[in-house]
Amino acid sequence: MFSFLEEPKMKKVKDFLWKPNMTVGECVDSFGYLGYQAIELNEAVKVVLKMKRSGAKIFLTFTSNMVTSGLRGFFAQLCKMKIPNILVTTSGAIEEDIMKSLGEEFEVTNFYADDVQLHEKGENRVGNLIIRNESFMKFEDLMNEYLTKIYEKQREANTSASKVNFAGRISVSDLLKEIGLMMAPKGVPSDTTGMTSEDGGLMQDGISEGNENSILYQAAKNNIPIYCPGIADSSFGFQLFMFQQKHPDFIVDTIKDMQRVVTDLSFDEKKGLISLGGSTSKHYAIFAALLSGGFDYAVYMTTSHAGSGSLSGATTQEAKSWGKLKDDAEAATVNGDVCITFPLMMCSVLDKMKEEGLLKDN
Amino acid sequence: MFSFLEEPKMKKVKDFLWKPNMTVGECVDSFGYLGYQAIELNEAVKVVLKMKRSGAKIFLTFTSNMVTSGLRGFFAQLCKMKIPNILVTTSGAIEEDIMKSLGEEFEVTNFYADDVQLHEKGENRVGNLIIRNESFMKFEDLMNEYLTKIYEKQREANTSASKVNFAGRISVSDLLKEIGLMMAPKGVPSDTTGMTSEDGGLMQDGISEGNENSILYQAAKNNIPIYCPGIADSSFGFQLFMFQQKHPDFIVDTIKDMQRVVTDLSFDEKKGLISLGGSTSKHYAIFAALLSGGFDYAVYMTTSHAGSGSLSGATTQEAKSWGKLKDDAEAATVNGDVCITFPLMMCSVLDKMKEEGLLKDN
Amino acid sequence: MFSFLEEPKMKKVKDFLWKPNMTVGECVDSFGYLGYQAIELNEAVKVVLKMKRSGAKIFLTFTSNMVTSGLRGFFAQLCKMKIPNILVTTSGAIEEDIMKSLGEEFEVTNFYADDVQLHEKGENRVGNLIIRNESFMKFEDLMNEYLTKIYEKQREANTSASKVNFAGRISVSDLLKEIGLMMAPKGVPSDTTGMTSEDGGLMQDGISEGNENSILYQAAKNNIPIYCPGIADSSFGFQLFMFQQKHPDFIVDTIKDMQRVVTDLSFDEKKGLISLGGSTSKHYAIFAALLSGGFDYAVYMTTSHAGSGSLSGATTQEAKSWGKLKDDAEAATVNGDVCITFPLMMCSVLDKMKEEGLLKDN
Amino acid sequence: MFSFLEEPKMKKVKDFLWKPNMTVGECVDSFGYLGYQAIELNEAVKVVLKMKRSGAKIFLTFTSNMVTSGLRGFFAQLCKMKIPNILVTTSGAIEEDIMKSLGEEFEVTNFYADDVQLHEKGENRVGNLIIRNESFMKFEDLMNEYLTKIYEKQREANTSASKVNFAGRISVSDLLKEIGLMMAPKGVPSDTTGMTSEDGGLMQDGISEGNENSILYQAAKNNIPIYCPGIADSSFGFQLFMFQQKHPDFIVDTIKDMQRVVTDLSFDEKKGLISLGGSTSKHYAIFAALLSGGFDYAVYMTTSHAGSGSLSGATTQEAKSWGKLKDDAEAATVNGDVCITFPLMMCSVLDKMKEEGLLKDN
Repeated sequence: MFSFLEEPKMKKVKDFLWKPNMTVGECVDSFGYLGYQAIELNEAVKVVLKMKRSGAKIFLTFTSNMVTSGLRGFFAQLCKMKIPNILVTTSGAIEEDIMKSLGEEFEVTNFYADDVQLHEKGENRVGNLIIRNESFMKFEDLMNEYLTKIYEKQREANTSASKVNFAGRISVSDLLKEIGLMMAPKGVPSDTTGMTSEDGGLMQDGISEGNENSILYQAAKNNIPIYCPGIADSSFGFQLFMFQQKHPDFIVDTIKDMQRVVTDLSFDEKKGLISLGGSTSKHYAIFAALLSGGFDYAVYMTTSHAGSGSLSGATTQEAKSWGKLKDDAEAATVNGDVCITFPLMMCSVLDKMKEEGLLKDN
Repeated sequence: MFSFLEEPKMKKVKDFLWKPNMTVGECVDSFGYLGYQAIELNEAVKVVLKMKRSGAKIFLTFTSNMVTSGLRGFFAQLCKMKIPNILVTTSGAIEEDIMKSLGEEFEVTNFYADDVQLHEKGENRVGNLIIRNESFMKFEDLMNEYLTKIYEKQREANTSASKVNFAGRISVSDLLKEIGLMMAPKGVPSDTTGMTSEDGGLMQDGISEGNENSILYQAAKNNIPIYCPGIADSSFGFQLFMFQQKHPDFIVDTIKDMQRVVTDLSFDEKKGLISLGGSTSKHYAIFAALLSGGFDYAVYMTTSHAGSGSLSGATTQEAKSWGKLKDDAEAATVNGDVCITFPLMMCSVLDKMKEEGLLKDN
Repeated sequence: MFSFLEEPKMKKVKDFLWKPNMTVGECVDSFGYLGYQAIELNEAVKVVLKMKRSGAKIFLTFTSNMVTSGLRGFFAQLCKMKIPNILVTTSGAIEEDIMKSLGEEFEVTNFYADDVQLHEKGENRVGNLIIRNESFMKFEDLMNEYLTKIYEKQREANTSASKVNFAGRISVSDLLKEIGLMMAPKGVPSDTTGMTSEDGGLMQDGISEGNENSILYQAAKNNIPIYCPGIADSSFGFQLFMFQQKHPDFIVDTIKDMQRVVTDLSFDEKKGLISLGGSTSKHYAIFAALLSGGFDYAVYMTTSHAGSGSLSGATTQEAKSWGKLKDDAEAATVNGDVCITFPLMMCSVLDKMKEEGLLKDN
Repeated sequence: MFSFLEEPKMKKVKDFLWKPNMTVGECVDSFGYLGYQAIELNEAVKVVLKMKRSGAKIFLTFTSNMVTSGLRGFFAQLCKMKIPNILVTTSGAIEEDIMKSLGEEFEVTNFYADDVQLHEKGENRVGNLIIRNESFMKFEDLMNEYLTKIYEKQREANTSASKVNFAGRISVSDLLKEIGLMMAPKGVPSDTTGMTSEDGGLMQDGISEGNENSILYQAAKNNIPIYCPGIADSSFGFQLFMFQQKHPDFIVDTIKDMQRVVTDLSFDEKKGLISLGGSTSKHYAIFAALLSGGFDYAVYMTTSHAGSGSLSGATTQEAKSWGKLKDDAEAATVNGDVCITFPLMMCSVLDKMKEEGLLKDN
């Protein structure tokens, strides 16, 4: 909403009118003159466009429930198109991306489902979606194989370097990159590791071409780090714990990424944030930017409100008091379910980027 | 969400993927597999389509703040296309539709505007929109002229019928129809009254072609009654009071519409409800349907939640306990700002109706 | 929050600590140093106290769901103590106050009740409360008797005054006062009408001592007008319609109260508002004050947020742009369920008023 | 709300009535018959009482913004009274507890403060509260000293045990316990470490008697582990990173606590959860319980809603589908700002526990 300061303050409400087969871009353009959150959403499009035009380094942060939803493939697609430069998320998001890459499907139910009955069927409800117990089990089995491979690789490298028989520390972002590379679709050489997904029996049975839509795979392939400061808090964390029990020389160092996240950014470059929901993912991005002068651009999309002082409801206004955003940052806060607002905003941005020639051969 | 009962329960989450220039219809189709409120929104499209296919009598209810926004023209367009059969709204909505028909423009500001400063400039804030004092003044002047004409017409008719010099009672829906007809764009004969808008100096100066987008005009022209049970609560109500002071034989009877709203509906016909926000508009429609067996279809779009027992947050589930909705009614409750959710839903519905040949020459 | 301007800005957060049997007043005092909505709630106490100390004319506005709840007796008690000077509410609130006065009891259920099953049992859900069909039926029977009495009284008075056989117009506030007076507990002479509740068989069977807790009775007895601009929108409205059908010379004039609400207020006196929830009740009070210079004090308690431009979520800040509140008005907006926030605030206010000797023999 | 199943379903709404100097306990008792969230709050009291009566192991989880508020001292007091057995929180909460122990005071402002101006003054806004930059700086200085001490102690212990010059791993809960013990008020021997707070110049200047109200101190003293899975995401995490840079043999192992949190719980014992807000703190407790059969009792207090699938808005109902709560668990979800709802609930619980003799010499 801050760009209004620049424009002569004369923007008027315009009647919204249907015409057949309107594109999302046309619809969101008209939102700019419609009212309330529609105007904020339109403003968010402008802010993200400015991020891209200015070559800002862009954080995209999201939470687990969004990966439970079909936004998962969209996040992966955005990585493929190199829209964000850095991802920050929660461990549930990692888990569910892997489950889906294994071909596990999540079901649609409704908000009033009988939860005791679902429990008996081994179905876990997330709003109006379902994750089956079986999906968790498959994830756990795969994790064990992945961790063994990463451990061995790490141990080999470290031992040959230091002459000490020790796997040593791995940062979370490196761990997630290794996993992502192993998730390459069948037959695709995962260039960094030198392994192809044909290498292991696991990958042949498990990971299908479906993981073109994998966030971890696309992020790894496109050199987009994934930060996950809360990795310990999940089934993933439990797998790490179990593995560390057996291999005490293997240390997943959650603190280590702080170095990377800080050095990833500089005071000199433009920085942008697209934050969906709240949680550690929102906070970690903000903290990183705070250390290098704050964001130049920010879009917050959330269902939370500012009244209880929660970070999830904190506005881009409040962020300025902290220096999380620069005083003159361009920013928009859009209230509403990101399953609706984020696709609208990003499809609109992508169509405009395509028009402006900002999209590379996609 | 209730249509799931009919389908084999196997709907799966699908990854959302951008493709260039996606239409709103395509986007909302994919929402059906996306998650949370996106799924509910998609469900709402299906429910409204069923309303139209079944020939149900459809109530569209909305509040004043939506007419402050650019939804005003869209509501008018929907009337022109005869999508709803009955409107229910609040008096602020009536006022602002008239202001806009007079050419008054509402401005866009932001949620953090300095309200004391706005007050000094005579600018009244509604979220991130502005209505100027001047717009209210123009409305009041026009109202006086409209009421005088309606009074005289009513008095003449009544007097010739009853031989008593008495203007008598007029129901709110009749009053709003008379006003709507007078709002015909210049040169268009307003067939019911026999007056054209050229008749009066007022109309020549005031109402422009802009009121093709007027809710009152399109509703009047297309024989769609507008109910407004809370008419007394507003600047409009104040104008009515001032007029009644001078003309005590003129009675705007807000109770009288109960007859019409009840006889408008029958137990035998299908009934549908599209309720935006809360207020008397939502309740009046519900009450009317309750008296004739409840709605067969309902879509609630709101930002309120169920936790405090308010009607604005009441869900379509709760409505079944009352018989406001039939036990087997098809219904969806979509949480979010209607400035975003309603255009998405209705554009999607209209595109599908067009495809199915359900739209008449529009 | 605006009183901070006056104080040196040095208020500090203080740790909340339990001590045995803390009073509500002590608890709410400590809220002033606690955080977020607790601070706003504490501020609201101060604002209401200032209203009372200054002798401001106070509007209390509330919605139907609050009368469904146990706040009904509290509203009545506040009338008895002459805390508010004017009430504004919705028609559902009137109905349910009458039902409860008839001895009808509302049940507690939960938010996940099976609504189809409830419907079969004739139980209508409002959040986690239940109103039985039977309660509505008893209300309807009583209404018919009440209206008959009022009609006859009105007709007699009018006829003797004007020599025309005509019941004439009655404003909603007068209608509600007549009803309130007839709801006097058994044996209590209802002084204005000259009738006692012993007069009618109805009252002997129906209205019990329980209606000491009746809003309508206490308001009538203490000369507190009840405005209900949306009276037409309800079962009450339907009863009025049915009655008018049989007695066309009886006119409930909803517009007429505009005169009273306007003349009730003057530019010279202090005016205060305690607004619970949204709806016509909030708007009517605001509109009335707007016409006489705006409120000096205002407390808004609501679960709605400002993001969608709804009146229910509109803040006391926004109100200043309209002149609904004076520029320097003292005001607080408390977000949360009024079933929690309002008793806390008002008990705190009453304890302090008692201490200050502002409560008359209660 | 699930205890309704046990009672004959006959609970009725009762009118709330003020009487002078009502205690919080009396007020909350009457909430049980009042409506909506007041009923849920009353239910929450019952659920927590059952936790305590049954000797359940209780998790209390909260987020940073609550420690910004005056709830901080209350959480400490509850630890002193051994109400919770386990805490889970976020790293901001740790930081701010330490700041406050250093005598730093947080200010009260309002939600509409000028954030750019605040930024210039070095004031960081959290809703209507302020944390000054200075408080962060003091925290950072202290952290450095604390970490040095812990490192040296750890190194000594490890080296003497393993004959290798290596500080080794420390779990987050152990790290926080060490810090907590060092925060003992002046002159109080911190028994576990053998150090008294007189030992260091730092403690003499810094930590005052004020830290009787410190969560870290009271938790450490009373052997209540604090889990903080998201420790990496904060200024605290940055301090840890800086320290690890200089002392690469010092490893804060965030995964390690998984062992403890799992072994802390058994299938055989009763388990209870009081979850305030969302975030990793809510999820970590839930995950821990899931591994040992789910909670028997749970109270969720939050401002979030279920509609977007977020964990912060997830209800106790949904939790049953996962086995996070047992099928027959007693649970309540209270919507509203915890700065209001939590003190009401817990003061009510404590008064009742005192009455029942369940509080030990407090």
